[in-house]
Amino acid sequence: MKEKLLVVKIGGNVLDNEQALQCFLNDFATLKENKILVHGGGKIATKLGEALGIKSNYSNGRRITDEATKDLVTMVYGGLINKQLVAKLQLLGCNALGLTGADGNAIKATIRPIKDIDYGFVGDVSSDNVNSPFIQSLLNQQVSLIFAPLTHSEGNILNTNADTIASVLAIALSNYYNTRLLFCFERKGVLADINDENSVITKIDEAKYTELLASGILADGILPKLENAFAAINQGVKEVLIGHATDLVLNTTSETKGTLITS
Amino acid sequence: MKEKLLVVKIGGNVLDNEQALQCFLNDFATLKENKILVHGGGKIATKLGEALGIKSNYSNGRRITDEATKDLVTMVYGGLINKQLVAKLQLLGCNALGLTGADGNAIKATIRPIKDIDYGFVGDVSSDNVNSPFIQSLLNQQVSLIFAPLTHSEGNILNTNADTIASVLAIALSNYYNTRLLFCFERKGVLADINDENSVITKIDEAKYTELLASGILADGILPKLENAFAAINQGVKEVLIGHATDLVLNTTSETKGTLITS
Repeated sequence: MKEKLLVVKIGGNVLDNEQALQCFLNDFATLKENKILVHGGGKIATKLGEALGIKSNYSNGRRITDEATKDLVTMVYGGLINKQLVAKLQLLGCNALGLTGADGNAIKATIRPIKDIDYGFVGDVSSDNVNSPFIQSLLNQQVSLIFAPLTHSEGNILNTNADTIASVLAIALSNYYNTRLLFCFERKGVLADINDENSVITKIDEAKYTELLASGILADGILPKLENAFAAINQGVKEVLIGHATDLVLNTTSETKGTLITS
Repeated sequence: MKEKLLVVKIGGNVLDNEQALQCFLNDFATLKENKILVHGGGKIATKLGEALGIKSNYSNGRRITDEATKDLVTMVYGGLINKQLVAKLQLLGCNALGLTGADGNAIKATIRPIKDIDYGFVGDVSSDNVNSPFIQSLLNQQVSLIFAPLTHSEGNILNTNADTIASVLAIALSNYYNTRLLFCFERKGVLADINDENSVITKIDEAKYTELLASGILADGILPKLENAFAAINQGVKEVLIGHATDLVLNTTSETKGTLITS
């Protein structure tokens, strides 16, 4: 039987709040399964960029990564945030190892092709570009992997969406592990009523998903997450969980408090 | 018979010069032995610190690492420099993995005790604190390790001298490998005459070292390097080589161009 693997993604809202982050890391450290954490960027890159006179440019909600921004995110995501997480987890007895996609060639990317917009140093990734044997060898040594949202191609570090990195890791590693992919965000799960935190839809399968889409009750913001989740499910990931960072531990069990997504 | 291991330290003078760095990496990538690269900081941390209004404070030539400086070096050494080196080496076909001492608990440190001066977040290390089994497991997978001059203790990243990191790694791993420790710097080796680059002393053993010290011909700057080198030799490192970064390849062979130090 395959061993269990948890791929957990945390976003900026957790990273930007010292207390929320510490609670999350305390919980993450207690998890006994093979585990991977993928972190986003948080506000610190933007703040530091401003201090350095590097402007944040966006197009359709996506950051354009010019050379200066590439260096900025390499420093902040790959250095400051990643290494602080690793050091804090070590203190909690969790043997963590920080990685970008360049390290050990863990995740190779292709630089995003220029169509209407040149996104600059942004990497597109697929599960085929994950170095699964290398990642397995680390997990087999009871090392927990902490991924920064950075990949590489042709000698460059590339900025890559953290949700996507979590997805492709989960997909690639599903060949070897029973994988649960957890997206931790600022809500308890997928809500039937965006104004009511107690309206979590506890389980969504393909049939329910079709029904929900037709009903039009889902908030716009959750749609890309669900699309991402079903893409993972359709490529072999056993379960995807969308929930609040504070519910991490329960959401790794069968007593989930968030939204469990299955095929 | 033990396999060969090269532990190579490069300083800021190589990192700060794009062309010199590329030459060095081209050479490093061709080395067939198990290999570890330890990099220093270069001028970029100071430059970036100035742009951010973080002052560099020194005492007796050593940087004082306050909280802001700790974050700065974590970003620049652990992120920017380390990940750029890794990405560039990947392009050259060298499967590199960047590490700080926190990653995989590779090198644990103790925060430097406060005596006359509080150095702040500075880590002191010994070869006993090197996680040799973990490092071996990576080297066994033909992964080349790229160490930033950072260690950890009690949940903090600590600033640590790169020469010292190279030394303690070489000492700890000498139990398992025939280890050559190479200090690459801006001169061809230990010079009999500081004004003559062609006056390299090609070999120094304990007897010769005593003789050189007595003669007083050695330049002040080289004395700590030699002290470091003999400390390594006396703790099991087979050979230490002090030489120019451009002579890396020859200096890994028996046709050394720098100064070879043996017991």
